[in-house]
Amino acid sequence: MTELTHKSIVDGWFREANDECFPGQAFTLKVEKILYQAHSEFQDILVFKSTTYGNVLVLDGIIQCTERDEFAYQEMITHIPLYLHKNPKRVLVIGGGDGGVVRELLKHDCLTTITQVEIDETVIKLAKKYFPGMSKGLDNPRVEIKLCDGFIYLQDLAQLSNQDKYDVIITDSSDPEGPAEAFFQESYFRLLKNALKDDDSLIITQTSENVWLNINYLKDLLKAAKSVFPNTKYCYTMVPTYTSGQLGLMVCSPNEKLDLRNPTRVPTKTEQEDLKYYNRDIHEASFVLPNWADKILNRS
Amino acid sequence: MTELTHKSIVDGWFREANDECFPGQAFTLKVEKILYQAHSEFQDILVFKSTTYGNVLVLDGIIQCTERDEFAYQEMITHIPLYLHKNPKRVLVIGGGDGGVVRELLKHDCLTTITQVEIDETVIKLAKKYFPGMSKGLDNPRVEIKLCDGFIYLQDLAQLSNQDKYDVIITDSSDPEGPAEAFFQESYFRLLKNALKDDDSLIITQTSENVWLNINYLKDLLKAAKSVFPNTKYCYTMVPTYTSGQLGLMVCSPNEKLDLRNPTRVPTKTEQEDLKYYNRDIHEASFVLPNWADKILNRS
Repeated sequence: MTELTHKSIVDGWFREANDECFPGQAFTLKVEKILYQAHSEFQDILVFKSTTYGNVLVLDGIIQCTERDEFAYQEMITHIPLYLHKNPKRVLVIGGGDGGVVRELLKHDCLTTITQVEIDETVIKLAKKYFPGMSKGLDNPRVEIKLCDGFIYLQDLAQLSNQDKYDVIITDSSDPEGPAEAFFQESYFRLLKNALKDDDSLIITQTSENVWLNINYLKDLLKAAKSVFPNTKYCYTMVPTYTSGQLGLMVCSPNEKLDLRNPTRVPTKTEQEDLKYYNRDIHEASFVLPNWADKILNRS
Repeated sequence: MTELTHKSIVDGWFREANDECFPGQAFTLKVEKILYQAHSEFQDILVFKSTTYGNVLVLDGIIQCTERDEFAYQEMITHIPLYLHKNPKRVLVIGGGDGGVVRELLKHDCLTTITQVEIDETVIKLAKKYFPGMSKGLDNPRVEIKLCDGFIYLQDLAQLSNQDKYDVIITDSSDPEGPAEAFFQESYFRLLKNALKDDDSLIITQTSENVWLNINYLKDLLKAAKSVFPNTKYCYTMVPTYTSGQLGLMVCSPNEKLDLRNPTRVPTKTEQEDLKYYNRDIHEASFVLPNWADKILNRS
């Protein structure tokens, strides 16, 4: 059997470099073994076992998750909107083929329907094989998986009745340079709004950026979202294997009076014991920005 | 003239690797030009111009600061204890030869004396040459620089009268693997306590770690500090060029009743305009930890 190789792996180290998005800096991880490497219909996919972060999923050269720190992202993108909603029943996940968000959603007994729309079946198959801790919920009977483009799914949904709409929609996509490009534009936020059940509903998206790298992009993204949801706020999660050690999230509500920084509900004692990252205090703290970033994103 | 070289720079990229402290991961920065390289009496020193983070100071292979993000560290290690003190007059800085902490201290008009104790004169000279934005306060008449070992300075200080002691002591050292080793032990915290003026006084130190890398080390460090200062808390600052994108700080007060998370004073409007990172909200947020880390460091 030929040993696998990948252009991002040299001398046994994976190197995350992107001259356009974060020139002049690159994070590297030591590779124990390449587990999978292929071009799917949609993207370049790499899975490797690292020496200190467990298995690592890389799409189009960008680290999506590592087994050691993935909970920081999955918990925050899931529980921030879930604990902001007073009584969520139906949740839609756009992307998230690795299953991490679904695993977190299943911790909420109140949910009746979890719909996941993933464009790339390969990602789901690889998650089941190489990330069992993340993908373990994908076969749960409360979970319905649709293999299609999230943008088109939402367009079709606009025709449906109110009862088929959602309380929370989580966009857990890859970055805009690739199949997820459409998820970072105003037209997408309009589709999201149409797919929400009512004023209590919420959406959250990963922004693909953080305040250190491209704050002007974030400002524009917030502006696009605010044109549809005036109540939009930036928050973030700290993930050591993401560029700069943090990733921005954006949460939006059709209800202008909802304070997004303060969760409507708090985890029960049993729920809290099952959470490694999220708690009430870190929900609030994740909206607090360094002064210069706060000025640009929240006060201009 | 021979072109400068350094073992951490290969193919035009600086690579921060340390098999003992953070095995299996390494952050890299693209080098435009090596500006200085030498072994001083105390440590290996490298200064280079990066393509996207300005000039970078590296001691014993570890990034100490870059011009683009240094304020995140300097502001937090300085203003957290300063705004916790109700009326600070005399401040001691152990280390900090780059001048960044002194620059921040000079923003507090209430200070009468700023003493800096730096073991390595080379660092001060290099800061003046290559980091003018950081070192600009080192010649200010309120600043007194002592070129000696901080540990020995504190030992001698224990003999002095109360009026020569300090309201705030900031330990802005390099990491424990090198000349700063003594700054991470119980005997050092005892010396710090003896050098404090009264119960309103505070100390802060950089921990050289963060919750993702070596939380057990942090737990032990907090334990050592708590044996001297029962009121000790961990907080952190987010710096994209530090390992994992964040660095832990530890703040201690002899006053068990002081809530370290809540600043005693807040910046005036003029002071706030001069701060890029620190504000009242981020002071509080910097003490909030992800659930798993909070459990280990604050609830066990």
